[in-house]
Amino acid sequence: MRATVYHGPRDMRIDEVPDSSIEAPTDVVARITHAGICGSDLWPYRGIDHPEPGDRMGHEWMGIVEEVGAEVRTLKKGDRVISPFLISDGTCEFCRSGLPSSCVHGARWGGRNDGGQAEAIRVPYADGTLVVLPLSVEGDEHLLKAILPLTDVMATGHHAAVSAGVRPGSMVAVIGDGAVGLCGVLAAKRLGAERILLIGHREPRLYLGQAFGATDVITTGDEQAVQDVLEQTHGGADAVLECVGTLEATNMAIHMTRPGKAASLVGFTHASQAPDLTYRLFQNITITGGIAPARAYLPALLQDVIAGKLDPSPVLDMTVDLDGVPAGYAAMDERSALKVLVRP
Amino acid sequence: MRATVYHGPRDMRIDEVPDSSIEAPTDVVARITHAGICGSDLWPYRGIDHPEPGDRMGHEWMGIVEEVGAEVRTLKKGDRVISPFLISDGTCEFCRSGLPSSCVHGARWGGRNDGGQAEAIRVPYADGTLVVLPLSVEGDEHLLKAILPLTDVMATGHHAAVSAGVRPGSMVAVIGDGAVGLCGVLAAKRLGAERILLIGHREPRLYLGQAFGATDVITTGDEQAVQDVLEQTHGGADAVLECVGTLEATNMAIHMTRPGKAASLVGFTHASQAPDLTYRLFQNITITGGIAPARAYLPALLQDVIAGKLDPSPVLDMTVDLDGVPAGYAAMDERSALKVLVRP
Repeated sequence: MRATVYHGPRDMRIDEVPDSSIEAPTDVVARITHAGICGSDLWPYRGIDHPEPGDRMGHEWMGIVEEVGAEVRTLKKGDRVISPFLISDGTCEFCRSGLPSSCVHGARWGGRNDGGQAEAIRVPYADGTLVVLPLSVEGDEHLLKAILPLTDVMATGHHAAVSAGVRPGSMVAVIGDGAVGLCGVLAAKRLGAERILLIGHREPRLYLGQAFGATDVITTGDEQAVQDVLEQTHGGADAVLECVGTLEATNMAIHMTRPGKAASLVGFTHASQAPDLTYRLFQNITITGGIAPARAYLPALLQDVIAGKLDPSPVLDMTVDLDGVPAGYAAMDERSALKVLVRP
Repeated sequence: MRATVYHGPRDMRIDEVPDSSIEAPTDVVARITHAGICGSDLWPYRGIDHPEPGDRMGHEWMGIVEEVGAEVRTLKKGDRVISPFLISDGTCEFCRSGLPSSCVHGARWGGRNDGGQAEAIRVPYADGTLVVLPLSVEGDEHLLKAILPLTDVMATGHHAAVSAGVRPGSMVAVIGDGAVGLCGVLAAKRLGAERILLIGHREPRLYLGQAFGATDVITTGDEQAVQDVLEQTHGGADAVLECVGTLEATNMAIHMTRPGKAASLVGFTHASQAPDLTYRLFQNITITGGIAPARAYLPALLQDVIAGKLDPSPVLDMTVDLDGVPAGYAAMDERSALKVLVRP
């Protein structure tokens, strides 16, 4: 079969690899129907993270179950499934308490595991990891495209909003106009936020943010953006969703949070320095969020997408086949694409 | 009148200063009956913070109202009062929402304001700042000594416990065997914690911690202490109370918190670096707490002290008169005293 393989910075290739197969009785093998390229895939692409050459890529995917291990209980051949961006067993303390991202058997897609940017994939702990889609989605290509972001970016935006305590009437600030930030806007809107201030720099994405529910767009630079949020919210946002991951964005988030309220940091941090926590101390600002427990959120978000109440599909603004994956990375790297949908 | 005045590092003096007097119609003047020397007073004493020479000292005090400004509504001459360690107006958004530490008219004791380590004190926003003690406390010197820590260290320990989410059955780790850490143990116990692991290095204080409710004492060094907590709690404490304020203690706190749970940082940070937040991100650890909104906690904590359910008085292990204040600082600095009670 064919799969996306990391050979080095800016060198993703579609290689012939051994077919995915059952290795443990709790595995299934699925044929990939939809996959995504994630903003976090750009870290290795840009040479900032260094996977091993030969590592598989892709952690956002949906597919059809093709083979089922002997101990799998909830899945059968032919099921259409969606996976969160992490593997989880579904039974440990953390999975049961809604934090499958800390699963004691947790693992990541790609690397030495199979990846989602491929023709097929082996799924460890398949009962715990996968969610079966209802038959009603069959044949509705727009709906399937709207479901794919639940694998990661929509779950992450939702996690940012939930962690930061967004509730009906909240004044929310969202830092970052990437796919996660835009999904954070959708999530804040869904949770009833009254004002959503989106901070970013790229006009087409900010327009999309407004379509998603942003009531205000702030394009000024870091310190001025903080001042703008403080002014427009009369002293700080009730909830700040930091969806970038840089030191600058983290410091901005802390300083635009209303005293006593929370900033959720879901950006995949690569900052070499940590933020100054002094202001946090004196204003009782909580720093929360983290890597999204996407598996826990999937059922509720899926229900809303299927019901037509939530549609993150516009973040997928470019579609490629498997051969087009390297071009998809390049497009996201140069920001000509916001997020790429892969149809193997 | 006489008051404690900062002249330079390790140079606190009892100077003759102008009598405290009403300056605004919302002021009262109180005669100080009890005051404390706080661990945070040691920062300027040690030359780490630099107040201006001539600045007044002391932010923990109780006293008797002697003069009342024209617009004061809730206080009268002769009332015995307790003050939290910050001034607050009692009417702003933050005061009304339980966060008087962020009061829009908030200010600190000492500096250019009067300080508590003195014969008398001018109290701005007296209606908002002060709490009147009931007549039942009169003449009960032990009870008054048990009430004094509510001005700061007991309120701070309580804030750490509340912010970190301590509830009945919690496994709690408390970092630091100073007065705040020990009060954190008391607070965790009061909130129903099942296990309280106290991390410290000074034996007499750890004994006191056990008397306060610590079920386990950990005296190993930083990294080993983290391992010990992880082992004894099978994966991390449900709530971690960081009551030191150093970078090392903050990093310890984050790494001994159970995934998905919270570490509250109430130590008065003087770290030149901030902690690494990567582990926090991947395990969804919330960093919360901050400077305690002591005024908001005073009524409930006071009720428990008066009812005999809470007694932090043992943290006050040395008593001095006003002339003894410089010796009190020295004793705390060399750790021969845990915390000093001043009876002017």
